[in-house]
Amino acid sequence: MKILIIGAAGMLGRKFAESLVRKPLHSAPTPTRLTLADVVAPLVPTDFAGSCETMTCDLTQPGSAQRLLSGRPDIIFHLAAIVSGEAEADFEKGYTVNLDGTRTLFETIRQIGAKESWKPRVVFASSNAVFGGDFPDYIPDDYILTPQTSYGTQKAIGELLLTDYRRRGIFDGIGLRLPTICVRPGKPNRAASGFFSGIIREPLIGQKATLPVPETTRHWMTSPRSAVEFLRHAATLDLSLLGERPNLSMPALSVTVGDQIAALKRIAGPEAVALIRHEPDEAIARIVSGWARSFDPQRALKLGFTTEQSFDDIILAHIADELGDRLV
Amino acid sequence: MKILIIGAAGMLGRKFAESLVRKPLHSAPTPTRLTLADVVAPLVPTDFAGSCETMTCDLTQPGSAQRLLSGRPDIIFHLAAIVSGEAEADFEKGYTVNLDGTRTLFETIRQIGAKESWKPRVVFASSNAVFGGDFPDYIPDDYILTPQTSYGTQKAIGELLLTDYRRRGIFDGIGLRLPTICVRPGKPNRAASGFFSGIIREPLIGQKATLPVPETTRHWMTSPRSAVEFLRHAATLDLSLLGERPNLSMPALSVTVGDQIAALKRIAGPEAVALIRHEPDEAIARIVSGWARSFDPQRALKLGFTTEQSFDDIILAHIADELGDRLV
Repeated sequence: MKILIIGAAGMLGRKFAESLVRKPLHSAPTPTRLTLADVVAPLVPTDFAGSCETMTCDLTQPGSAQRLLSGRPDIIFHLAAIVSGEAEADFEKGYTVNLDGTRTLFETIRQIGAKESWKPRVVFASSNAVFGGDFPDYIPDDYILTPQTSYGTQKAIGELLLTDYRRRGIFDGIGLRLPTICVRPGKPNRAASGFFSGIIREPLIGQKATLPVPETTRHWMTSPRSAVEFLRHAATLDLSLLGERPNLSMPALSVTVGDQIAALKRIAGPEAVALIRHEPDEAIARIVSGWARSFDPQRALKLGFTTEQSFDDIILAHIADELGDRLV
Repeated sequence: MKILIIGAAGMLGRKFAESLVRKPLHSAPTPTRLTLADVVAPLVPTDFAGSCETMTCDLTQPGSAQRLLSGRPDIIFHLAAIVSGEAEADFEKGYTVNLDGTRTLFETIRQIGAKESWKPRVVFASSNAVFGGDFPDYIPDDYILTPQTSYGTQKAIGELLLTDYRRRGIFDGIGLRLPTICVRPGKPNRAASGFFSGIIREPLIGQKATLPVPETTRHWMTSPRSAVEFLRHAATLDLSLLGERPNLSMPALSVTVGDQIAALKRIAGPEAVALIRHEPDEAIARIVSGWARSFDPQRALKLGFTTEQSFDDIILAHIADELGDRLV
């Protein structure tokens, strides 16, 4: 089985590629060829039994999609995107990468498939940002997509294109609306959602963290480990079970910042919690208040997508995966 | 006030242009300049007090959008589209006209607006075809868009783009999801929905008509007259009332074919009904079964969009507008 990951240098792409090396996919042939592509050179995971190649490649450049697909992969994971903040700041770049890049990928599959008998599976990373504005406390699976950012708009359009290309039989496919990923490993970044990870990640290594919103703020989060499992499950799931609607809201935990801090206290003690400094930021609070707080992802749950049962589990997964299972 | 109608040679565009000549818009300056554009030359309405120009123009050709917008219209009605059947039969043409054409129009407004202080109002003709598949009997305003045709996909993407460009302040705008229009004037066509009009239009002039579906078939219809009024209302409505969701399902009547025939009998007698020949067509019945049967368009109703109260009214409007108020 040949697998292509577009966006393989990102946090999720990297972790997913590593997982394919460590553990074969459920009930699927072992990958014989792994192609890792991104606009910057992806890392090659060690100990991969099959062949692994990397491509430095920008989907928006002419000929790139043809080159990416030259190995005729069986499964294509399309994780590449300009993130929310940048797509909002740079209108043209966001539409060029997130809309035109995705469409070029789909169109190139169509053009190749018209000449050869090749029908891959496409796993598309969508986002909870397809929802926005005035929504209910628990967003049901049949709720209207009303993005309030350009990024969310571009992801919603990607979902619609995926549905139509799949309906046409051009490829089989599934779209996963990924929740906010927490605890994100690495350095603090300037994303508006960064503090959800920062208030856990930094105190666990004895560093200070800033909390810009009230502890009552509620949000929808899952671990990097669960997000990797979503991709793995999507790789082998029987897609005929999706019927006419191949885009799914993924399960996650709906927790408040207060819940996060209570879990941190249980696991790392009050001295960790004391490292969190409350520093209200009206601008961030306003952005966060427009984000979905909770979902009722019945379809994904029925199809076997799973997430952590408590925020304690999310912290413990981070300690196991990123801190060598040890607290400082 | 300067008005541009793109798609002015179509049935709705033509009737709307005529209505602007006959009757000024509610609480708006009289149009001083009317630009009628289409891929075939639109007719010039007679007796227009201001200046009226026509343009034969294809939005998908380079420079066309610039030319269309050269008069810097105050309101742009974007009614141009490849229809459902053709967009399904010709994948590339549908996406080129319905998606790329719409995006080019929006992008050209953005590029002009970046240099000049010009912020027009865009009225976008969307369609009930943005809904499809497994939906409830009454589709609420916050129901997910799940088109099951390429045409519906392209209209849903147009809605998303309209929302984002409006949110960005590039133009103000509103999207109207138009119901099936009945009674469509003119000759029978080969659209799958054609019979809804045919079984009324033909018997009213003493001609035979074919009914390919059972009389229990339910559908969502409004008259050409109401559809013109939707556009007129959208021209002057306070768009701030739309909040973050500028796309609206329009009101219409949910009637069965049996209801249609009963109304025809009341108005034109049993001899008109006798001209309808039942000729079941499985293929058409299957297509029609995937279409929305009824909506709960609360937002549009609250904002003052209205429709007929009974199918009798729809037939009487047709007799008044198309048959000189006389039955044969």
